[in-house]
Amino acid sequence: MEGATAFESAGLWGVLGVAMLALLYAFQLARGILSQDKGTSTMQSVAQAIGRGANAYLRSQFRGLAPLIAVLTVGLYLSASLAAQPLSISLARAGAFLMGACFSAAVGYLGMNMAVQGSVRVAAAARRSFGDALRIGYRAGTITGMLTDGLGLLGGTLIFIVFGRAAPEVLLGFGFGGTLLALFMRVGGGIYTKAADVGADLVGKIEVGIPEDDPRNAAVIADLVGDNVGDCAGMAADIFESYEVTIVSAMILGLALNPPDLKWIVFPLLVRAIGVISSIIGTYAVSLWPTREDAFRAMDISYDLSSAISTVSFCLLAHFYVHDWRVFAATAMGILLAIAFNKYTARFTHPAFRPVREIAQSSRTGAATNILTGLAVGYESSVWAALIIVLAIFGSVLIYAQSGVTFVLYGVALVGIGMLSHTGNNVSMDAFGPIADNANGIGELTGMEPAARRIMAELDAAGNTTKAITKGIAIASAVIAAVSLFGSFVETTGLQRSGLDIANPLVFIGMLIGGALPLLFSSLTIRSVGRAAGLIVEEVRRQFRIPGILEGRVQPDYERAVLICTRAAQRELVGLGTLAVLSPVLVGFTLREGALGGFLAGIILVGQLLAVFMANAGGAWDNAKKYIEDGQHGGKGSEPHKASVVGDTVGDPLKDTAGPALNPMIKVMNLVALLIAPVLVAHRTLPWGAYLLLGAAGLAVLASVWYSKQGAFALPDNES
Amino acid sequence: MEGATAFESAGLWGVLGVAMLALLYAFQLARGILSQDKGTSTMQSVAQAIGRGANAYLRSQFRGLAPLIAVLTVGLYLSASLAAQPLSISLARAGAFLMGACFSAAVGYLGMNMAVQGSVRVAAAARRSFGDALRIGYRAGTITGMLTDGLGLLGGTLIFIVFGRAAPEVLLGFGFGGTLLALFMRVGGGIYTKAADVGADLVGKIEVGIPEDDPRNAAVIADLVGDNVGDCAGMAADIFESYEVTIVSAMILGLALNPPDLKWIVFPLLVRAIGVISSIIGTYAVSLWPTREDAFRAMDISYDLSSAISTVSFCLLAHFYVHDWRVFAATAMGILLAIAFNKYTARFTHPAFRPVREIAQSSRTGAATNILTGLAVGYESSVWAALIIVLAIFGSVLIYAQSGVTFVLYGVALVGIGMLSHTGNNVSMDAFGPIADNANGIGELTGMEPAARRIMAELDAAGNTTKAITKGIAIASAVIAAVSLFGSFVETTGLQRSGLDIANPLVFIGMLIGGALPLLFSSLTIRSVGRAAGLIVEEVRRQFRIPGILEGRVQPDYERAVLICTRAAQRELVGLGTLAVLSPVLVGFTLREGALGGFLAGIILVGQLLAVFMANAGGAWDNAKKYIEDGQHGGKGSEPHKASVVGDTVGDPLKDTAGPALNPMIKVMNLVALLIAPVLVAHRTLPWGAYLLLGAAGLAVLASVWYSKQGAFALPDNES
Repeated sequence: MEGATAFESAGLWGVLGVAMLALLYAFQLARGILSQDKGTSTMQSVAQAIGRGANAYLRSQFRGLAPLIAVLTVGLYLSASLAAQPLSISLARAGAFLMGACFSAAVGYLGMNMAVQGSVRVAAAARRSFGDALRIGYRAGTITGMLTDGLGLLGGTLIFIVFGRAAPEVLLGFGFGGTLLALFMRVGGGIYTKAADVGADLVGKIEVGIPEDDPRNAAVIADLVGDNVGDCAGMAADIFESYEVTIVSAMILGLALNPPDLKWIVFPLLVRAIGVISSIIGTYAVSLWPTREDAFRAMDISYDLSSAISTVSFCLLAHFYVHDWRVFAATAMGILLAIAFNKYTARFTHPAFRPVREIAQSSRTGAATNILTGLAVGYESSVWAALIIVLAIFGSVLIYAQSGVTFVLYGVALVGIGMLSHTGNNVSMDAFGPIADNANGIGELTGMEPAARRIMAELDAAGNTTKAITKGIAIASAVIAAVSLFGSFVETTGLQRSGLDIANPLVFIGMLIGGALPLLFSSLTIRSVGRAAGLIVEEVRRQFRIPGILEGRVQPDYERAVLICTRAAQRELVGLGTLAVLSPVLVGFTLREGALGGFLAGIILVGQLLAVFMANAGGAWDNAKKYIEDGQHGGKGSEPHKASVVGDTVGDPLKDTAGPALNPMIKVMNLVALLIAPVLVAHRTLPWGAYLLLGAAGLAVLASVWYSKQGAFALPDNES
Repeated sequence: MEGATAFESAGLWGVLGVAMLALLYAFQLARGILSQDKGTSTMQSVAQAIGRGANAYLRSQFRGLAPLIAVLTVGLYLSASLAAQPLSISLARAGAFLMGACFSAAVGYLGMNMAVQGSVRVAAAARRSFGDALRIGYRAGTITGMLTDGLGLLGGTLIFIVFGRAAPEVLLGFGFGGTLLALFMRVGGGIYTKAADVGADLVGKIEVGIPEDDPRNAAVIADLVGDNVGDCAGMAADIFESYEVTIVSAMILGLALNPPDLKWIVFPLLVRAIGVISSIIGTYAVSLWPTREDAFRAMDISYDLSSAISTVSFCLLAHFYVHDWRVFAATAMGILLAIAFNKYTARFTHPAFRPVREIAQSSRTGAATNILTGLAVGYESSVWAALIIVLAIFGSVLIYAQSGVTFVLYGVALVGIGMLSHTGNNVSMDAFGPIADNANGIGELTGMEPAARRIMAELDAAGNTTKAITKGIAIASAVIAAVSLFGSFVETTGLQRSGLDIANPLVFIGMLIGGALPLLFSSLTIRSVGRAAGLIVEEVRRQFRIPGILEGRVQPDYERAVLICTRAAQRELVGLGTLAVLSPVLVGFTLREGALGGFLAGIILVGQLLAVFMANAGGAWDNAKKYIEDGQHGGKGSEPHKASVVGDTVGDPLKDTAGPALNPMIKVMNLVALLIAPVLVAHRTLPWGAYLLLGAAGLAVLASVWYSKQGAFALPDNES
């Protein structure tokens, strides 16, 4: 590449090598998992049913997305060519978009299938020992982690090597491809998983009174599938997106720095490569710690190990290559931020700490006080999350105090780069959740022996905690990614110089609209879950009326429930996707770039507060219930327990659907804004045809809101 | 006054005359109410107990506030003198602060006492006819409305006549006095009322199983007192504050317009005077409509009548005096905004519409689905509220498109002026709520005859609706007032010219901190209610253990419960008040005016969204319960009804404490920022003593958050 030193050229090829290494490691891990004992034939047949359901969902998802992707590929081409980019760049952006979408889909697809394969083997291993089961579960999760790392790094580096200084224009397409897929996988998976879960529970546990994961319940396989598509595929796509998007904005901002220097762009890539190596070491070490009986603690120590390796390496790189301590300070702060988020989320969602215990205690006076304390805990947790992010940005301000705003924004992007260095560890911890959950479900469905069941229950509990904790990182990374995208937007539109004046009424209006959208999105996703759950309830009730099913003599038609969930989730996605993609276009072309800037700021602010609130309140309610089930305040079956079940049921769609849906929503809107920014600046007036299109877009948004608004948690009457 | 035309001078005296007229009308109404039949001696003794409790609360509140007011009077003096104002202005600002506080206190004190007097007479009248009871209840509420109008207009006009162009500097003090009192009355009243309500219900209804308002419950009087101090005194102080604050910002912005003209300042005062006259006519007409049996509809028609009179008059005034259609357009839009908010709030909280019915329907599958649907409804309602406010600001942008930002901000202030023209009607409708509620309680406590009880139950239901609806206006007015204060802040700091650049990381940080504060405030107020309710629970349990009380032979010690509530509410206020007053000072002096501007924008955005969500979700849950109690989905005592009670109990502290607390919080923070703005600009560096003070302030804020965080909805064990 032009202007690159020998070290830089070698470094870039080295980064590519590390990306391949991550993929190779994933392949090795997969081989290792597949060679494990996969249990009895009953267990295998359950696992196969789950696998079939999960793949049916993803296939239908991808099929549904194909036309949209085709349209958007043209849109991406236009976004570049209307901004007067050369033909090669416009085409490349469209191609990169396809590549980003495919990579994101691949992470989800492969990771999810390995999770399904892993879970049945965890169940089999649980008959031998806790340590074996933990190791297999965690390593199966690590496959998804390594895929995220490897493909994310591969795409970004390849594009940079080919396009050099023009890379950001192409990378925007790559980022958007990943982001779009993530939006659909995260939101669709979230609706799927909670519709199946809530639907199965409402009929099974509440109406008929059979236990969770009972094989007579037709929705039980759909419920297990849901954990995979929501918590594994959806979450992996979400973090993959943040991983890409932080690279995109670090490059855009790095190229805008003055004096220009290639090192501002090569450094983030090298940092990422180091992070991948640290992650490989850290995740490998999990099964080596002596704290075998505490799964969460082992993962936590490994995380610290990865962090230590990375920090030392970043320091060396900054000193010997960049000759600038500030890039080290910013990336190290990112690592600190990730650790801070892990610890802080645990404080609010782990039963060892006061918030969860307060919720448990308040369950003694009923469901209402349980809910109120959960709300108070959730709101408070959101405040601390905001302050941690404030500290990170303020740190960047201090580091780059003398160098102007673009440097500060670049610093924020570097914080994001550092923060996501250990994506491998995070995704492993997260994917461990649905794997342990599925293993436990397989145990229940096949009636395994009590000793193994106890081990799996413990792993499931640990998985719940790690899942809750990685939600914190996912949100924080989304916010930091969005803030750096926002910085790139301001840079691209030239608002950097003219100022994005919030006292300008149009900007203020944009902020109000943007701030309102996360609430609208949450309202609609909650309703979507309700409507989809209603369909499941009807189906399960229908099957219960078939003679022999309730008696356990006839196997229910699991596939039909899976199909209904799949279709329902797809249908709900149409409206939500339209809203997310078209809103920034509408605001941008009607109220122009100032209002669009305010809009983005509003979305980031409110989106973050709401997402953290929902994730942590949901996690805390969940664990308060578990805490009571462990024998506190009367234990299982007591009145406080019933109250805590209400809290848990309220929290479920918040923490697994509405809250996580906000992460990709925040990023999609920022990325769409960034894509249309040069078009906005280049075309101060629009041809009349464009206004027609805008009008159509407005109608589409209204129609999709109207459609999504029809859902509710008002389930169908039981006619039987 | 210098430069005033003869019409203007006469007009100003006319405004003073109208202010006196409003007070006179209030006096006349009070005489009319007091002359009514006050029922049996048992009814009177209950009313006296309520009155004693309410006054004990206010007295203790005022006593507790006295030292703070003394300190702040000095602070107000310093805020002017440090900004190099002449001695006369500095002293006048301090004096005006005292006057504002006294006026606000007077509105609360007098209005509340008239409400107590009114409610026993409503109960007595209910034995005769529905029409009489409605008329007395509404007129008793109108007294508070007229006091708000009269004192608000009197203070603003007097200060303007005396100080002329320097009036805004003095008015800031007047506004802050009202605002501070409102903060304490609203938050303290909110904690008091819900602590008593929740505490009484948890022991009475749930533990012991006696009905609401049962005379054996020691907290029953405290509960009735709570309605008065929260819904009447608190709400009146809140609206009084918005009423003052919109005048303050209209004057500040009016004086900054170019070319300068006295009419920009005289016009808002004349508009307010017209509004008072329309309100008098409208409120008087309520008992004249033939829709006697539908209390809410009568008030609604009267509101429309007032609006029609005002709109025509504003038009004439704009045409013949200001010679500018734009001021008419802006104020008329304010009236439209108020009507829109009334109708829109009804859509989300009235059982005649879909949202409430959906919540009721979702109660059939239990408390969790009831809560989830309520959350979805509340979030959605917040989105529409934001869009209505966006339309209002956008309207001002269109009206003043050619005239620059200061004119647009002035336009927003005029929207606020127009919107609050019919404060008389709004406060009447609102105060009607606690009056009807108390009448119903007196009926229950004294065992009145069924026919009268039915009438009072109907009035109580109507009062619930009007109370819920005026919450919408209260929030909208707080937001519009805050936006115009924000405009004044930007004008005062000179950020108007340099731009308040949200892409500047410090401004962005300010926005994140500001956005997080409403969540912190809500978390803490919810906890405060929980802790105070715990004390009530302990006291009621203690009294139930006294022989004879549960059997109804011994009268419980009501006063003790009142005293406990009073003390608890006072104690909770310390932390919350410290947080509200000191946060902007801390942000301003450490991160400077840019960050403070972002901070204000964040508070307005998130504060508004959260306040609307809480008010409407709470109102909708409440009415969903009532809808079921009216015989839907199984009616009272059914499983859906139990689920809806959980929703109602969750909604109560949200809609009556945490949500309403945000209105004065938003305004207090904006006003404090405006007060310190000139000091910030004048003193770019601070003496070291000031940093010591700031450090102390920071510690005070941390300590108050820590203190308030200790509360929870985890009630004490029942040792008996």
